[in-house]
Amino acid sequence: MSDVKKAVLAYSGGLDTSVILKWLQDTYQCEVVTFTADLGQGEELEPARQKAVNFGIKPENIFIDDLREEFVRDFVFPMFRANTVYEGEYLLGTSIARPLIAKRQIEIANLTGADAVSHGATGKGNDQVRFELGYYALRPDIKVIAPWREWDLNSREKLLDYAEKHGIDIAKKKNGGSPYSMDANLLHISYEGQVLENPADEPEEDMWLWSVSPEKAPDAAEYVELEYELGDIVGINGVKMSPATVLATLNQLGGKHGIGRLDLVENRFVGMKSRGCYETPGGTIMLKAHRAIESICLDREVAHLKDELMPKYASLIYNGYWWAPERLMLQGMIDASQAHVNGWVRVKLYKGNVIVVGRDSKESLFDANIATFEDDGGAYNQADAAGFIKLNALRMRIAAKLRT
Amino acid sequence: MSDVKKAVLAYSGGLDTSVILKWLQDTYQCEVVTFTADLGQGEELEPARQKAVNFGIKPENIFIDDLREEFVRDFVFPMFRANTVYEGEYLLGTSIARPLIAKRQIEIANLTGADAVSHGATGKGNDQVRFELGYYALRPDIKVIAPWREWDLNSREKLLDYAEKHGIDIAKKKNGGSPYSMDANLLHISYEGQVLENPADEPEEDMWLWSVSPEKAPDAAEYVELEYELGDIVGINGVKMSPATVLATLNQLGGKHGIGRLDLVENRFVGMKSRGCYETPGGTIMLKAHRAIESICLDREVAHLKDELMPKYASLIYNGYWWAPERLMLQGMIDASQAHVNGWVRVKLYKGNVIVVGRDSKESLFDANIATFEDDGGAYNQADAAGFIKLNALRMRIAAKLRT
Amino acid sequence: MSDVKKAVLAYSGGLDTSVILKWLQDTYQCEVVTFTADLGQGEELEPARQKAVNFGIKPENIFIDDLREEFVRDFVFPMFRANTVYEGEYLLGTSIARPLIAKRQIEIANLTGADAVSHGATGKGNDQVRFELGYYALRPDIKVIAPWREWDLNSREKLLDYAEKHGIDIAKKKNGGSPYSMDANLLHISYEGQVLENPADEPEEDMWLWSVSPEKAPDAAEYVELEYELGDIVGINGVKMSPATVLATLNQLGGKHGIGRLDLVENRFVGMKSRGCYETPGGTIMLKAHRAIESICLDREVAHLKDELMPKYASLIYNGYWWAPERLMLQGMIDASQAHVNGWVRVKLYKGNVIVVGRDSKESLFDANIATFEDDGGAYNQADAAGFIKLNALRMRIAAKLRT
Amino acid sequence: MSDVKKAVLAYSGGLDTSVILKWLQDTYQCEVVTFTADLGQGEELEPARQKAVNFGIKPENIFIDDLREEFVRDFVFPMFRANTVYEGEYLLGTSIARPLIAKRQIEIANLTGADAVSHGATGKGNDQVRFELGYYALRPDIKVIAPWREWDLNSREKLLDYAEKHGIDIAKKKNGGSPYSMDANLLHISYEGQVLENPADEPEEDMWLWSVSPEKAPDAAEYVELEYELGDIVGINGVKMSPATVLATLNQLGGKHGIGRLDLVENRFVGMKSRGCYETPGGTIMLKAHRAIESICLDREVAHLKDELMPKYASLIYNGYWWAPERLMLQGMIDASQAHVNGWVRVKLYKGNVIVVGRDSKESLFDANIATFEDDGGAYNQADAAGFIKLNALRMRIAAKLRT
Repeated sequence: MSDVKKAVLAYSGGLDTSVILKWLQDTYQCEVVTFTADLGQGEELEPARQKAVNFGIKPENIFIDDLREEFVRDFVFPMFRANTVYEGEYLLGTSIARPLIAKRQIEIANLTGADAVSHGATGKGNDQVRFELGYYALRPDIKVIAPWREWDLNSREKLLDYAEKHGIDIAKKKNGGSPYSMDANLLHISYEGQVLENPADEPEEDMWLWSVSPEKAPDAAEYVELEYELGDIVGINGVKMSPATVLATLNQLGGKHGIGRLDLVENRFVGMKSRGCYETPGGTIMLKAHRAIESICLDREVAHLKDELMPKYASLIYNGYWWAPERLMLQGMIDASQAHVNGWVRVKLYKGNVIVVGRDSKESLFDANIATFEDDGGAYNQADAAGFIKLNALRMRIAAKLRT
Repeated sequence: MSDVKKAVLAYSGGLDTSVILKWLQDTYQCEVVTFTADLGQGEELEPARQKAVNFGIKPENIFIDDLREEFVRDFVFPMFRANTVYEGEYLLGTSIARPLIAKRQIEIANLTGADAVSHGATGKGNDQVRFELGYYALRPDIKVIAPWREWDLNSREKLLDYAEKHGIDIAKKKNGGSPYSMDANLLHISYEGQVLENPADEPEEDMWLWSVSPEKAPDAAEYVELEYELGDIVGINGVKMSPATVLATLNQLGGKHGIGRLDLVENRFVGMKSRGCYETPGGTIMLKAHRAIESICLDREVAHLKDELMPKYASLIYNGYWWAPERLMLQGMIDASQAHVNGWVRVKLYKGNVIVVGRDSKESLFDANIATFEDDGGAYNQADAAGFIKLNALRMRIAAKLRT
Repeated sequence: MSDVKKAVLAYSGGLDTSVILKWLQDTYQCEVVTFTADLGQGEELEPARQKAVNFGIKPENIFIDDLREEFVRDFVFPMFRANTVYEGEYLLGTSIARPLIAKRQIEIANLTGADAVSHGATGKGNDQVRFELGYYALRPDIKVIAPWREWDLNSREKLLDYAEKHGIDIAKKKNGGSPYSMDANLLHISYEGQVLENPADEPEEDMWLWSVSPEKAPDAAEYVELEYELGDIVGINGVKMSPATVLATLNQLGGKHGIGRLDLVENRFVGMKSRGCYETPGGTIMLKAHRAIESICLDREVAHLKDELMPKYASLIYNGYWWAPERLMLQGMIDASQAHVNGWVRVKLYKGNVIVVGRDSKESLFDANIATFEDDGGAYNQADAAGFIKLNALRMRIAAKLRT
Repeated sequence: MSDVKKAVLAYSGGLDTSVILKWLQDTYQCEVVTFTADLGQGEELEPARQKAVNFGIKPENIFIDDLREEFVRDFVFPMFRANTVYEGEYLLGTSIARPLIAKRQIEIANLTGADAVSHGATGKGNDQVRFELGYYALRPDIKVIAPWREWDLNSREKLLDYAEKHGIDIAKKKNGGSPYSMDANLLHISYEGQVLENPADEPEEDMWLWSVSPEKAPDAAEYVELEYELGDIVGINGVKMSPATVLATLNQLGGKHGIGRLDLVENRFVGMKSRGCYETPGGTIMLKAHRAIESICLDREVAHLKDELMPKYASLIYNGYWWAPERLMLQGMIDASQAHVNGWVRVKLYKGNVIVVGRDSKESLFDANIATFEDDGGAYNQADAAGFIKLNALRMRIAAKLRT
C-alpha cells in the first residue's frame, strides 16, 4: 500500500469523506489533494476548505470548483436530448454527475502530479463503478483507492469511533441531520436506506427536502413557457438563461408545485435491487416538455429509433459508461437528431402535474393542411390508403391463404 | 361494385355509420349485417337495433355484442403487461380496440355467409389500417368496403345533406353534441379535430368528458391497493374482480381524482402528424402500478429486454399489427415474463397524481439482507466490486493505453 | 394525364425503357428527357444516345453520366462500413444503386425544368419503391410516372407487340439474350424469373455471367492485401486506388476465383417472397475483410451496437429509405465508428472461398501482452475475474435463493 | 480454505486437470469427485477413470457421462434456431458446451453431497465465467474453486514441475502433442495461443485437425439433402437420425469438403481481444441451411425480429448467460418462431463452399402465383403499389415541403 504518493480525494467536507481523508493519510502515508465540487447540491463549500486545512492539506492541494454550468451544459442537457429514463422511472440524477467528478479528479491528478484517486462510495453501490470507469477511461494507469472496499470500518458505529478517536467532528451526525443516505446536485436529490429498505412502506413526508408535497403546493396553477434551441432549453418565459440557470429556475418552479418526487425499486449494476426516492423537479418538467417539442420537430422514424435506443443509452449512463466509446457514438447520433428541435413549449404546473398545453416551432412537421378533418383541398389522397393497406397486409394474407 | 352480396358493417348507430349503412344498400345493392359492440364506450346500444330495423335490416342480421370482458382480458391486459406506451405518451386506447372489432366482424361474416366487411374510418387515419389488417389477417379473401375512401361525401356538409335526403336523424349533430371527433371504450376516450388542429393551443376545459380536472378533484387523497396475478390486476382493495370490472373501477377512481388526461402530437402510420387528446384514467393507474410490481418481481435483464422491445411492440399495436405473427411472437415472450409478477401495489391518487407508496410480493427479488446499508453479515462481499470494475473497465483501459 | 409537360426517364436503351419512352410520348404528349447512367453495369452507353435521338429526343435532353466513382464512394462504401447484409445473405447490390439514380434524375429534372420523372420498374418489385421514395424525398411535389402500374402491356407478348408496332428494335430479345430479369452495376448482377421461380430448383450454370464456378476457378490460391482508411479500402496489394477502381479490381479477382454467388429467397417490401440469384464478387471480399479490420480496431461494445443496428439499417436500404432522416442518422453514427478503422487485411482467394489470413493496424486494440497464454508480467490480474463473475451472477443467485 | 469437504471437478484426464485434482486434494484436504463428459470431443474417456483411481478417487466418486445427445438436442440445436453468430463470425462452439458441463456438475454435486465445484479454466478467459455463472444460477450457495486464479503455478514450467514432483504423467506434453490451447466437442474444435497470438500471421496448415484444407478436398462436389422439423434437422439424405448423429454426420461431410474453418479476433467478456481459430464443419452447413429453410417458412417480420435480437442472444451465450432468465425468455420466442420451419434444403458441398441449391416446404410462404414475372391472373394488383409508396413517402414529403 505504500506505493501511493499522492491521492486526489473527492471530498465533500462531511463526516464520511473526512474519515477517509484521515484514513488515507494514515494508511497510505501519502499526500492528499482534496477536490470539492459545486454541482448545485446547495451546500456551502468553503467550510470544506477549512476542514482540509485542519487535516494538514497544503493550500495548493485544495481544489474547490464551481462546475454547475459545465454539469448542466455538457452532461444533463445531452442526456435529456434522449428523453433518458432508467427502468421507466429514474431520471439518473446521481448517475449523470459522477462522470464529471471523475473527469475533474483526473484533471487535478494530472495537474498536481498525483498517482492515485479516491472516492467515498461504498462497495455495494453504483457510484463506485461510475467513478472508477471514468478514472480508468481517462487515465488507464491510475491507482484507485476505494476505502469502503478496503477498510474494516464496515458499520456506522465503527466509523463514528474512528472519527472520534481522530478528532473528526461528528456532532451533526450524532444529534440530528437526515438519517438517509443522500446525494444532491442541480438535477436531483436522492434518499436511500432506513425505512426505505422495506419497499412495502411509504416514505415519511419529512424525508423530502426539495419539494413541497402536491397537497401543500399552491392552489393556483402556473404557466411556464420554455424556449428550445437544438433540443436544449435556452429561455424561460421569454428570458434567455444559461444552462445552470435554466435548471435552477425549473427546480424552483417544480419544487414549489410539488413536482418530481419519485419512489421506486431499481436494479443496480452490481446485481441487487435497491429502493430509492428521488426529487427531480426541474428534470421532470424538462422530460415532459422535451418530448412535446420533439413531437412536432422530429421525423417519426427518427423519434422511434431514439425511443428504441434510449433504454440502452440510459443503462450506459446508469452503469457508469459515460466515457465509453459506445456512449459517445450514441450521443453523436442523439445530438444530430436535435438539429431541428427548436421552438417553444408551454406547460402548466399544478400540484405535482406537468401538463403540456401548447407547443410550436418554425420547423414544425405538423402540417395542418394534411391533418385537418375538414376538406384538405387535395393535400392528401384518401384513395392512397387502400394500396398502402393492401400491401402492408400482403404477407399476412399469403400466410393465411397458404396455411389454411 | 355489384359483386358484393352481403356486408358486415361495424355499426355504432350514430350519424356516420347510419349514412354508411344506407350508402352501402344503395351503392352495392347488398344485404347489410350490422354489428354493434359494447366495448364500454358508455352508450346505450339498443337504439342501434331499432335504427337498423328501420333501415330494413333483418333481425337475424343485427348483432349487438357485449365484448367488455374479452376486450380487457385478451387485449388491454396483455398490452399492459408490456408497459406499452406509444411515443412516450400515448396509451393506445383506440388502437387496442380495433383488432377485437375486426375479429368479431369476421366471425359474424363467417356466421352469416357475408363476403364483405365495412367500417366508418376515414382514409386519413390509423383506424382504417387497424381494421383492415385485422380483416385480411383473419380472412385473406374478404372484400373490404371503406366508404370514406370511395364516396364523394368528403365534407360534413355533404354528409348531412345525404342524411337529410335519406331521412337519417341528424338532430343531435345539428344542435349540439361534442364538436370533436371522438372514440371511446373501457380504456379511454379520445378527441381530435376542431381547435386541437393547432398544437399551439390549449384544449378547452369542457372538452374533457370522463375526468374532472386536477383542480376540481377532491382535496383528500385516496389510497388504493391493487392485487396482481401473472402481471394482471385481479383485485382492488381486497375485492377480487373480473378484468372489465377492474378497469371500470379504476376508471371511476382515476376520473374522480383528475387522472389520465393527455394532450399530444403523434405520428400516424399513414405518415402525417396529428394532435390528439386522451383520457385514460384507469390505464394511467395501471401503467404506473404495473411498473412498480415488476420492479420487485422481474429480473433486471428481463426488465431491460422488455423495455428495449416495448417501442416496437407499441408501434405494432398502434399500426394495426395485432394479428401479425411478430406481435404474437413478442406477446408470447412478454406473457412468459409475467410468471412471477404476483403481489400487490399500493397507490395514492390525488389531483392528477398516481403515487406509488408501497409494493410487495412473495416472489420479490428485493433482498433486504443484501441491499441494506447496515452490516449485511457477509451476504455481499464488497471486495468483489474491485474485480468487477477492473474487468468492466479493461477494454477502455487498453484503448486509452494503446491510442495515446 | 395531360398535365405532364416534361418527364425525365431513367433510360437504359433496352427494350423495356424504349417502349416506355414511346409510351410516355404518346400517352402524356410530353417532352421526354432521357437519363442513362454508367454505374459499371458493363454495357456501352452511347447506343442509348442514338436510340434517344431516333425517338426524337432533343440533344440537350439526352443525359449520359458516368456515376461510377460517386456510386462506390458515396453509396457502396458507406453501406459496407456497417457490414450490411439483408436477411443474413443479400449484399443489397440493386438496392444501393437506386437512390443515386433517383437523386440524379431529380437533379436533371431541376436542370431541365421537368415536372415529372419516370422509371421502368414494375409494380411488384422493390425498385419502384426505392426510386420513388428518393424522388419524393428530394422533390416532394414531383409527378411520378410508373408505366408498369398504369398501362395494359402486362405481359411480355403485349410489350413485344407494342414495340413492333412502333418500330422499336426487339431483335435481341426475340432470338437470344438472357431469359432472366437482370440488374447490374459495379457491385453486383442479379437474376430473377424463369426457372428461379421455383425455389426448389437449382439455377443453371450458364445463368451466371460474372464469375466462374468454384469448380472452374484456378487451382492456385491468390493472396490479396487490402489497405483501409476510415473503414474504406484505399489500396490493393500496395497500390492506391479510387473507390470505383477498388471495386472493379475486387470484382475481377473475385470473379476469377468463383467468389460471390448467392441463391436465396428474400422478402420484398411490398409483401411477397421472391427468389433471386446474385453475383457480388468484390462485395463478398469486402464484407469479409471489413469485419476482419474492425475486429482489431473497434471497441467491443461499439462493434456490438453496430451489429444490433445493422438489420434495421439493411432494411432501410433494401426498402428504399436511403434519403430518409433515420438512415442519415444511423449513417452518421456508423461513419463516426470508423475513425480508427485503419490498417490492412490479407485474404486468400480460392475456389469460392475468401479466407482471412492476417490483419494489422497501428490502431489495433489487440493487446498481445494481455492476451498471451504465457506469463503476462502482471498486465492482467486473474484474481479480478472472481469478483467480476460474482457480481455478474448476483441477480441470478438472489433469484435462485429467494424462489426455492 | 479448509471449509471445503467435497468438490466435483470437471476432469478431462489430461495434464492440467490432473494437476488440479492433486492440488485440490493437497490444498483443500477435501474429497474429490471427478466428472468426465463425452461431448463428442473424440477422446477415449475410460483412461480418465483409471487416472482418477490412481489419485485415490473412490469408484462411486468417478462420473463418466455420455452427454452427446443432450448436448446437441438441448443446447446446439436451440442455438442454431436463432442463426446465432457472435461478432459476425464465431459459431460459439466452446460457449455452448459450458452450460451443460456446469449443469451436470451441479447435479453430481447434489447427488454426492458435495459442497464445492472446480474447473480448469484460467482467469483470463470466457470459460471461467460460463462455468461459474452456470454453477451460481443452478445452486446459488455452491463454493467455486478456480485453481488458475488461486495458485501460483502461473507458467507452464511451474505446472510441469508440480506434475513431475507429484508423479503426474507429462510424457505426451513434453515430447509432442499440439502446442495450441484447444477445446473440442461435437460442434467444433478451437485453437488459441502460440503463433496465433499475432493476428497478422496466418495459422500453419498442420494446426487444423478436423478438416482438410479446401485445396485437399475432393474435386467432386457432393449434394446433401437436409430434412427439417420445427427448425431442427431430423434427417439427412432421406435417413432419419438423432441430433448427435445429425451433427456427427455433418461434421464428417463438412470436414471431408474443407468446410468450416474460421480465423478471427474476438472480444472476450472479460475485456480483451483474443485470436482464435475454429473448425465447425457441421455447424457451418447447419447455419447456411437453416437460413434457407427459414427463408421460405418464416414471415418477414418474424425473421427480421429474430435477426435484430440475434446479436444480443449470441452475446448472452458467449458471455455465459445460458441459464439466465433473459436467455430463457428469448429462447421461448425463438422456439415458437420455428413452428412452421419444416421442409427440406439441398446443399452442395465443394472445397470449402456450402451452396444452397434448393429448398421446399409444405408450409412455404413463397407464393409462385404472386411472385411470378408472368401474368399473375390478378393475384396482385400493381396499382396498389402507388398508394403504398405515396403514404410511405408522406413524412419525407411533408418535411421536404415545410423545411425548404
